[in-house]
Amino acid sequence: MLAHLGYQDLDALVAAAVPAGIRSSRPLDLPAAASEPDLLAELKELAARNRLMISMIGLGYHDTFTPPVIVRNVLENPAWYTAYTPYQPEISQGRLEAVLNFQTMVADLTGLPTANASLLDEATAAAEAMAISVRAARGRTAFLVDQDCLPQSVAVLCTRAEPLGVEVVVADLAGGLPDGDFCGVLLQYPGTSGQVRDDRALVAEARARGALVTVAADLLALTLLRPPGEIGADIVVGSAQRFGVPMGFGGPHAGYIAVREGLERLLPGRIVGVSHDADGQPAYRLALQTREQHIRREKATSNICTAQVLLAVMAGMYAVHHGPEGLRAIATRVHRHAVVLAAGLRAGGIDLVHQEFFDTVLARVPGRAVSVVAAARDRGINLRLVDGDHVAVSCDEITELEHLAAVWEAFGCPAPDEEEIGRNAPDALPRTLLRSSGFLSHPVFHRYRSETAMLRYLRRLADRDLALDRTMIPLGSCTMKLNATSEMEAITWPEFSRIHPFAPLDQAEGYLHIIKSLETYLLSITGYDAISLQPNAGSQGELAGLLAIRAHHRAAGQPQRTVCLIPSSAHGTNAASAAMAGMRVVVVACADDGNVDLADLHSKVNTHRDTLAAIMVTYPSTHGVYEEGIRDICALVHDAGGQVYLDGANLNALVGLARPGRFGADVSHLNLHKTFCIPHGGGGPGVGPVAVRAHLAPHLPTHPLVPEAGPAGGGGPVSAAPWGSAGILPIAWAYVRLMGAAGLTRATQVAVLSANYLAARLAPHFPILYTGAGGLVAHECILDLRPLTRQTGVTVDDVAKRLVDYGFHAPTMSFPVAGTLMIEPTESEDLTEIDRFCEAMTAIRGEIDAIAQGTSNRSDNPLRNAPHTAQMLAGDWPYPYSRAVAAYPHDRLRLDKYWPPVRRIDGASGDRALVCSCPPIDTYAG
Amino acid sequence: MLAHLGYQDLDALVAAAVPAGIRSSRPLDLPAAASEPDLLAELKELAARNRLMISMIGLGYHDTFTPPVIVRNVLENPAWYTAYTPYQPEISQGRLEAVLNFQTMVADLTGLPTANASLLDEATAAAEAMAISVRAARGRTAFLVDQDCLPQSVAVLCTRAEPLGVEVVVADLAGGLPDGDFCGVLLQYPGTSGQVRDDRALVAEARARGALVTVAADLLALTLLRPPGEIGADIVVGSAQRFGVPMGFGGPHAGYIAVREGLERLLPGRIVGVSHDADGQPAYRLALQTREQHIRREKATSNICTAQVLLAVMAGMYAVHHGPEGLRAIATRVHRHAVVLAAGLRAGGIDLVHQEFFDTVLARVPGRAVSVVAAARDRGINLRLVDGDHVAVSCDEITELEHLAAVWEAFGCPAPDEEEIGRNAPDALPRTLLRSSGFLSHPVFHRYRSETAMLRYLRRLADRDLALDRTMIPLGSCTMKLNATSEMEAITWPEFSRIHPFAPLDQAEGYLHIIKSLETYLLSITGYDAISLQPNAGSQGELAGLLAIRAHHRAAGQPQRTVCLIPSSAHGTNAASAAMAGMRVVVVACADDGNVDLADLHSKVNTHRDTLAAIMVTYPSTHGVYEEGIRDICALVHDAGGQVYLDGANLNALVGLARPGRFGADVSHLNLHKTFCIPHGGGGPGVGPVAVRAHLAPHLPTHPLVPEAGPAGGGGPVSAAPWGSAGILPIAWAYVRLMGAAGLTRATQVAVLSANYLAARLAPHFPILYTGAGGLVAHECILDLRPLTRQTGVTVDDVAKRLVDYGFHAPTMSFPVAGTLMIEPTESEDLTEIDRFCEAMTAIRGEIDAIAQGTSNRSDNPLRNAPHTAQMLAGDWPYPYSRAVAAYPHDRLRLDKYWPPVRRIDGASGDRALVCSCPPIDTYAG
Repeated sequence: MLAHLGYQDLDALVAAAVPAGIRSSRPLDLPAAASEPDLLAELKELAARNRLMISMIGLGYHDTFTPPVIVRNVLENPAWYTAYTPYQPEISQGRLEAVLNFQTMVADLTGLPTANASLLDEATAAAEAMAISVRAARGRTAFLVDQDCLPQSVAVLCTRAEPLGVEVVVADLAGGLPDGDFCGVLLQYPGTSGQVRDDRALVAEARARGALVTVAADLLALTLLRPPGEIGADIVVGSAQRFGVPMGFGGPHAGYIAVREGLERLLPGRIVGVSHDADGQPAYRLALQTREQHIRREKATSNICTAQVLLAVMAGMYAVHHGPEGLRAIATRVHRHAVVLAAGLRAGGIDLVHQEFFDTVLARVPGRAVSVVAAARDRGINLRLVDGDHVAVSCDEITELEHLAAVWEAFGCPAPDEEEIGRNAPDALPRTLLRSSGFLSHPVFHRYRSETAMLRYLRRLADRDLALDRTMIPLGSCTMKLNATSEMEAITWPEFSRIHPFAPLDQAEGYLHIIKSLETYLLSITGYDAISLQPNAGSQGELAGLLAIRAHHRAAGQPQRTVCLIPSSAHGTNAASAAMAGMRVVVVACADDGNVDLADLHSKVNTHRDTLAAIMVTYPSTHGVYEEGIRDICALVHDAGGQVYLDGANLNALVGLARPGRFGADVSHLNLHKTFCIPHGGGGPGVGPVAVRAHLAPHLPTHPLVPEAGPAGGGGPVSAAPWGSAGILPIAWAYVRLMGAAGLTRATQVAVLSANYLAARLAPHFPILYTGAGGLVAHECILDLRPLTRQTGVTVDDVAKRLVDYGFHAPTMSFPVAGTLMIEPTESEDLTEIDRFCEAMTAIRGEIDAIAQGTSNRSDNPLRNAPHTAQMLAGDWPYPYSRAVAAYPHDRLRLDKYWPPVRRIDGASGDRALVCSCPPIDTYAG
Repeated sequence: MLAHLGYQDLDALVAAAVPAGIRSSRPLDLPAAASEPDLLAELKELAARNRLMISMIGLGYHDTFTPPVIVRNVLENPAWYTAYTPYQPEISQGRLEAVLNFQTMVADLTGLPTANASLLDEATAAAEAMAISVRAARGRTAFLVDQDCLPQSVAVLCTRAEPLGVEVVVADLAGGLPDGDFCGVLLQYPGTSGQVRDDRALVAEARARGALVTVAADLLALTLLRPPGEIGADIVVGSAQRFGVPMGFGGPHAGYIAVREGLERLLPGRIVGVSHDADGQPAYRLALQTREQHIRREKATSNICTAQVLLAVMAGMYAVHHGPEGLRAIATRVHRHAVVLAAGLRAGGIDLVHQEFFDTVLARVPGRAVSVVAAARDRGINLRLVDGDHVAVSCDEITELEHLAAVWEAFGCPAPDEEEIGRNAPDALPRTLLRSSGFLSHPVFHRYRSETAMLRYLRRLADRDLALDRTMIPLGSCTMKLNATSEMEAITWPEFSRIHPFAPLDQAEGYLHIIKSLETYLLSITGYDAISLQPNAGSQGELAGLLAIRAHHRAAGQPQRTVCLIPSSAHGTNAASAAMAGMRVVVVACADDGNVDLADLHSKVNTHRDTLAAIMVTYPSTHGVYEEGIRDICALVHDAGGQVYLDGANLNALVGLARPGRFGADVSHLNLHKTFCIPHGGGGPGVGPVAVRAHLAPHLPTHPLVPEAGPAGGGGPVSAAPWGSAGILPIAWAYVRLMGAAGLTRATQVAVLSANYLAARLAPHFPILYTGAGGLVAHECILDLRPLTRQTGVTVDDVAKRLVDYGFHAPTMSFPVAGTLMIEPTESEDLTEIDRFCEAMTAIRGEIDAIAQGTSNRSDNPLRNAPHTAQMLAGDWPYPYSRAVAAYPHDRLRLDKYWPPVRRIDGASGDRALVCSCPPIDTYAG
């Protein structure tokens, strides 16, 4: 590759590509690279430093048993975990069906018609519901929250409300609504205290007074309780964690949101919907994509651009595996354990605060709470210390009678006759709230009850998709690189997967070591001074970074600094995050060469000098170029009193070469699921830590229940869990441990080499839109298809779909420039695969030329009809080219051909008639 | 299903199907069924009772680091582990290629042209080499063994030699060959003592004297040492364990055997070879199948009918992953550690027995050996106690300097300067034996060095195959049932996978618990009194059982009892095993109804009354029927002084219903990889314990190094490791723990139900050849295709290949009756899948009818041309039926179609021009 480019070695290439002004000469300060056996030994040791206790803490997190067939064939299966977001639906039908199962499950259980593909966690789901409420009830700026809501949800609501000028009013709504106008109301069902309260009158009154009612509900409880949709809720949010998703010290889990009819188009995030393909066969794809932040930009009320797909798939499969009867049986068992627990406590003279509950019992033990919790801990059980006088105990799927016995002991109760209690104690669910409606009646929740059937279903779905285990995924900006097995191993060890996020920290020493050292590693790599691992997606990292800037200006007595400059090429999330952080977006133009237009920047800085809060830039730019002027840009903004937010999406091109925290930026979010090898999981989990210079450190996120997770007096939480998606941090940690300083630097160099080699090979066929110094790109490149499109009618879509016929996942389409393809090969792809891709692209160029030359039909050609299914081959063949040209454009495909399960999908028609749950089975012929 | 058959419940069906005379009324005496979480907790506890030490014991077993990408994507991937033996090559091209890689690796490293698909272990491979030698050098009956051979190999040779009338002569060959005639010579290279001896003169002399020379060689050493094939060896055997296959307390591992030109057709076991398909494309299949025991029967010199495919795949992939440079680097590192170790010992005044070695250093410590070994153990390291004066220390892939330091300490040596030694100590390999020839030059060993490339290669190969994760595998007699994930989990935990088979037993308490309790479970299930888990395949269990019978008769002073009656329907292995146990096979006829012809049996028993050793019967019979007369058969043979060997292949139809040890049999082998859920692994590992009544217990297998593994004075070992494939016993143990007595019984009932339902559904289309009482079959059924074949020319082959087009693996073909298909649905397949299969078979019957009616061409039809590839669809279509009929005979195939990578394969042409290593890459166009 170097020879092809005419460089002696990697250093020479990098010297030519990366501006000297930003280069760091210091080697990264990291421990020596570990071998794979040493790494695994180290992780085993850290695992042993986490203490596995029985956690009956509740607070929205519950232990659960993931069916092993799901662990091994989803969570540990690269076909699922290395997949990308299903933007190319023809090669994503498997995970789209899996997510549709999740949506159907959420819709059925909540009693509302439309759920989305998942959100980051319950707290942010509540915040999204608040945003919908604010938007729907224009002008009203108070949001009412019942005091029995989860404390971390309330805290995230406050973080999110303040910059929007929304007031969060927390009140005890047991007695009814307070006076005043509210845009919305949030209730918890069952309450954090365990109580199951009949809020039907409250809901009716709130709706009558024009507020949207959001209920945060426990999906397992909803198998027994009347669903919120049936008592008038407009929105239901929550977490699907206890449906087989390990606690993992806080995440990742699948948050969910469902809405009533009429609110679909306000749903944030992604929605899978049913449409049809070119043959009219039913097919899935992401619906209503026009709602997303990357279209609405600074008008967006949400910056969510990912979901928790891998976890949503697991939760959905948990429901498929157990079916409605199985879920109800699990819920009943949990409830009965709680009932027996309560009866035993009562028999022991303990006063219970609520008599109606699902899984959580709240005990009043005046002055004794601390000692009861300590006694339970001595018996290997974590209880929840509510205050000095109250202890809460939550039962879950793995609760056994022996745990109840230990709890009774901890409370000082005599051992009751469990069997007798079990026989005699009545259920503790309010009769008025018992569920009578069915759920999960779709055949998919009834067909795969045996492990054999489940295994085959998972395999069939996986086989419909293209993931990294079959092909490079050359997505610009998304850095789809190797997720090494050894990096993935620890996350399914019980010592990591079964730790409650609010477990006492001395039970999580292994986690804390990983967190602390990963923080140190990331600071060394980025050159910043402080970091928070809490944001559980890049978007949340962005928001946290901008909130830190906002807080910094306010602390400096400059609250008027609210203008955020954003180059026109920026990712839509940037603008959406700025809006959510209470900033006003001012767009800076880009010059013809793709770089920030420095003249326009000067002018905008001058115009907004007194109100300038920040500039948000991506580096290398979203155009895939190391802009020479980055230091000047930083200086210009700093001189005007503004802060520099450097989007870390492209950090893969900087690690070991340059450190943003040292070349001028004040804050960045990183994408651990890009640069640091956490797999994309088919569209989440993302992990987006935010790193800052020292002056912003006091404003990093905090957590209401775990002060150790943030600076004293910091910025409030942006995620539900103290360290966000802690459960997958071992992956990024392992990556850094395996690579060491030299390995990381070399990876960056090779990423730059690969991108430049690919650009050089493809440039004769497709012009490279932007290059930097010496005609070089950074770690990705943009192919400009617009001239060919004008000439031949062949679009980027056509090329992307045709690549499927060649066995490839498409590059990024029309971002950041419409009509172009952006490609990032990453350092993980070897020369054979890159060449294979270049050959395919070159052959496609030949197919385009044939159209230009008139030897191929302009409206009926292999590109326009791509992708071609095997079914097409088997039927009549009305096309003016041969079946072999359609399906086997390269001989290499003979033995290893990927067949898309559907033809090209018509997304728009599906949006017109929205279907977001499993379609009736007769939709499928045969 | 019950309704279809007209039975009220399972009990009624079973009462009708299973003869009352053999029914057991007692429930199985087993612990209560465990839930999956409880099972995993129990296994964790047992894992903790194995103590993970550094084992430098050697003796043919070495710790190794399996690349995680191979662990997760082969050993933990159902696409690989649930596959069946590749008898249907069109749906097995992936694992056939993987095994061909293994064969190529063995051939290259040993320097011989032809290797087989693996054998059970090194000791049995040596025994197979001895059998070849005996057969090749007719008349000579002495087999010479160098005293530096592995002790377990020598012991297995003795076990195998005695009944054949072969004398094993163990001698120190360092000084040359003794006088006399030998059929063969066995050398160890490097020797068990560690010594690397130049045996070239010895080899030349042995060959000159007409003996075949077998070298048992260490594959890793062969990357540095001149290969045996280059110094004149005729046969090379050994183990590929240290190529990434975990020690697992003894197995399973892949033994190997390679032979020089001219001996190919004497190779035992399976061989993968290259042939071509109907389009002339290269394609793999099992070669030379006519050599197998099921053809040669009582003339066979080997009863091997399985390989260790899963482990051979792993070892081959280890070589693919590391390539020749990587393997050589690992070997060099191992050797340098041994050199440094030796130098440090010498510097500490320790006398070393050999100065030329690869990985093992033999130290002379007069009177101190026990204390040195104890001191090392205190430091967490197991050494080999050779005798009171000698200690051996073996280095392996995971050896680190810190381990050497601990060894020096244990020997009482002062800590040397390791770096200085490392610089100065010269290699300790004989200059005359350094390898100069290259190896692994085929591109497959150079293309997949990155984890990404490796992952995709594994996926591509897996995708070419059909395994249980995609379809039922309705093989009669082979019991392809669910291998549950939770049963598989523990085997890859290091506490199980990394225990040396000769580790002190107090380090293997978890294993011993599993072994002891599994033995108890199996005895309770079978009704026998004693059992040995040592046999690592059904064939070895058979041999061990017959050897016990032989020993019993001899102990009773009746050595003339050598006649073994075998019904004509028996599996070929029965006869081969009997021959190997020194018995003379007399065939008993079968009556028209498929049962043993009792009249003929009476007559044969009378004829051979004084020499009758045993009868071997399978129950239920290989015809899939519960024979009513089984008790009579047993009584008849017993009355004549014979023993009853009941082949346990069909135990799946008996568990919980009837106990062979109580209804008349004296000995059985069980197939844990059938009835007890150990997966088939694509053709191995098998596990074949032998269970006996009390009078045979003293004659069960023993082990020369681990007396605890067998009865005092017992029958000698049949496998290299004390408890055979101990590493996978947790699977069978977990199965019994999960099922409990009621679950196991119900599984058997459902297996019988499923088979009868299937038989009833298919009977209108294909006659069921044999049925028992009430027209019922047992757990499988035979479809008689012969009338249709006569009428239409459609063969069982055609039907089997056509099933591939429908997405199914074929049933068993032409066993036990030529021209028939045998089908066993097992209890794991649900009604949906069984119905899907019945529909496919019914549709195929329709296709046959079309031929009979003349509407379909007799020589050019969908059956004859099956399976159809996607490539065929893409090309010209010369066939008289449509592409849709060819590829989509059922609409269900639309979304989930399996495409075979090749057309029907011509096996015979490949046998004529035998190619058993990777074909040159230009064989593949493009």
